[in-house]
Amino acid sequence: MDWNRNRVTELLKIDYPIFQAPMAGGATTTELVSETSNCGGLGNLGAGYMNPEDITESIKQIRSMTNQPFGVNIFVPNHEVIYTDNDVKRAISVLSEYKDELRIDDDLVLPEKNHMLFYKQQLEAVLKAAVPVCSFTFGIPDSHIISEMKKAGTIIVGTATNVKEALIWEESGADMIVVQGSEAGGHRGTFTGEETGLIGSMALIPQVQDAVTIPVIAAGGIMDGRGIAAALMLGAEGAQLGTAFLTVQESGINPTYKEALLQAKGETSLTKAFSGKMARGITNRFMKEMEKEAVLPFPLQNDLTGVIRKQAASLDNPDFLSLWAGQAVSMVKQVSVQSLMDELIEGTNKLLK
Amino acid sequence: MDWNRNRVTELLKIDYPIFQAPMAGGATTTELVSETSNCGGLGNLGAGYMNPEDITESIKQIRSMTNQPFGVNIFVPNHEVIYTDNDVKRAISVLSEYKDELRIDDDLVLPEKNHMLFYKQQLEAVLKAAVPVCSFTFGIPDSHIISEMKKAGTIIVGTATNVKEALIWEESGADMIVVQGSEAGGHRGTFTGEETGLIGSMALIPQVQDAVTIPVIAAGGIMDGRGIAAALMLGAEGAQLGTAFLTVQESGINPTYKEALLQAKGETSLTKAFSGKMARGITNRFMKEMEKEAVLPFPLQNDLTGVIRKQAASLDNPDFLSLWAGQAVSMVKQVSVQSLMDELIEGTNKLLK
Repeated sequence: MDWNRNRVTELLKIDYPIFQAPMAGGATTTELVSETSNCGGLGNLGAGYMNPEDITESIKQIRSMTNQPFGVNIFVPNHEVIYTDNDVKRAISVLSEYKDELRIDDDLVLPEKNHMLFYKQQLEAVLKAAVPVCSFTFGIPDSHIISEMKKAGTIIVGTATNVKEALIWEESGADMIVVQGSEAGGHRGTFTGEETGLIGSMALIPQVQDAVTIPVIAAGGIMDGRGIAAALMLGAEGAQLGTAFLTVQESGINPTYKEALLQAKGETSLTKAFSGKMARGITNRFMKEMEKEAVLPFPLQNDLTGVIRKQAASLDNPDFLSLWAGQAVSMVKQVSVQSLMDELIEGTNKLLK
Repeated sequence: MDWNRNRVTELLKIDYPIFQAPMAGGATTTELVSETSNCGGLGNLGAGYMNPEDITESIKQIRSMTNQPFGVNIFVPNHEVIYTDNDVKRAISVLSEYKDELRIDDDLVLPEKNHMLFYKQQLEAVLKAAVPVCSFTFGIPDSHIISEMKKAGTIIVGTATNVKEALIWEESGADMIVVQGSEAGGHRGTFTGEETGLIGSMALIPQVQDAVTIPVIAAGGIMDGRGIAAALMLGAEGAQLGTAFLTVQESGINPTYKEALLQAKGETSLTKAFSGKMARGITNRFMKEMEKEAVLPFPLQNDLTGVIRKQAASLDNPDFLSLWAGQAVSMVKQVSVQSLMDELIEGTNKLLK
């Protein structure tokens, strides 16, 4: 089986159907993205939280470091985020309990931010740069966005967590879909009802493959050649790895987070405490203590906890950091992108050649 | 790759490393078990709730229908099930709300039952029959049980849902381990802390393979050759399928349950409402309404809801049946064991030969 010759490698013009996941929040440095692409995979910039100017600058940098295809990921916001002033007061009051411990002097406030405008400006930056690949998470962009991007030569990648979402993406014109199993670290990409989006890859990938005609990229719990080979057996034409890339030398995560990943024995859980949207990470004190507390909807809770996470990072305190990680986190290694990619390719070759 | 020649097929002397899961509660008729074994897989009798006499009789019947190896599964009870009279009163009061609707006249009562004695008598029946394979769920039997069974020539199969449990089983002398991913239908086999046992197969299987030396059988979400091939890629040496065998002609489940499986679009969730232990099934009204209600610990809640489930079955009412199913339930088919096994073998051959 020529596992690295399929619709995904042909469409993207890459050597191996291996995607480095577009993790938002600083992990996906321009070095990480460009080096993954230089090694024959698809590097992806996690631009979900990035300013438009930073997106433009990062794309420029990536292009200066690779002439291979790469992707940019954008979060699609909800048109309507429903909450009351009372919700904000309550969320602030819960979080304010931690101010002393984290030596935060100022009152916690919900930053004023126009999320729709921010998203539109992000899209403009991506459109203007005519990137090779653009992936979307948390929803479907307006159809004119997709057609404009396609006109610019950009390949569109959707994110789905169940069959229904995969069908919506296919209908909306996606060229391929990243299908996120419940094993995955970080935010659930679910956009059709939270309770429907926690399906393990073993069950999810074949059901999606049977439902759609466009290529499927499996994501969630894949850490080595065994996972890539399994993904391809299940019917996927590619594999996307996040957690495995978090601990590489080129990753931009802070040292406390990296250390927590390297020490992790595999205990992760799902939480809304950091961002208001369900995400998987190494279970820590903040996740446990916030389990039953009120949180604001995404992305407001994320805006509100920003100062807490920032301060925790500066204090090297993993108790209050979002330690996003998948369920196979115990398999992470401290290597270079080059070594990781070599291992992934050799490991898959050993099983499938 | 000679996928059907490995330690599992050698040790068990079977043609294909495909296990029909030992589903308790009536699905695993002697026809289902013997026919699976006759087709080259390993049929397994789900004896968890069966009387010792019925176990003896079923084993006799299976042996009259096949000369191939087969297995029997036993539930290992907790030594101590903690609850108060008040807990019982509360659980009864919650369930009594449904009496009118289900036309139940008698008061609900918790049946008197010595679960430890029952378990010991089940073990005696299995020991006396010197079955080819005995698998255990929900815990580890005393070491003398394991050594007596081994002396009788019985191969011991453990059930694990995380690395820790797999290591305990290896230490306890299991010959192989069924490793249950979070995709699986029915009861979670977790016995070391519920929150640690919901790991998707893609993440779980490689981590267990790296931790133990005995063979691993992957379970959870596997429905066809794609799943079997993926399981083998992940490092398993066999695959166990439950849901796929529920809708075969030889399955003993009641017609209302079978119909619900055949109609299912894939929506499952976890509940303790039926038995007191977490299990995955097609989401129905009882599961939803009981979500926040008090339930007794396993197996008391199971004893208590017995009359409700029985009455629901006789009324063809799927709202109150435990519709156990895995996350790939939309892939079930109404075929014979022979056809299913043929498809599984051919499907795997196509990918791995």
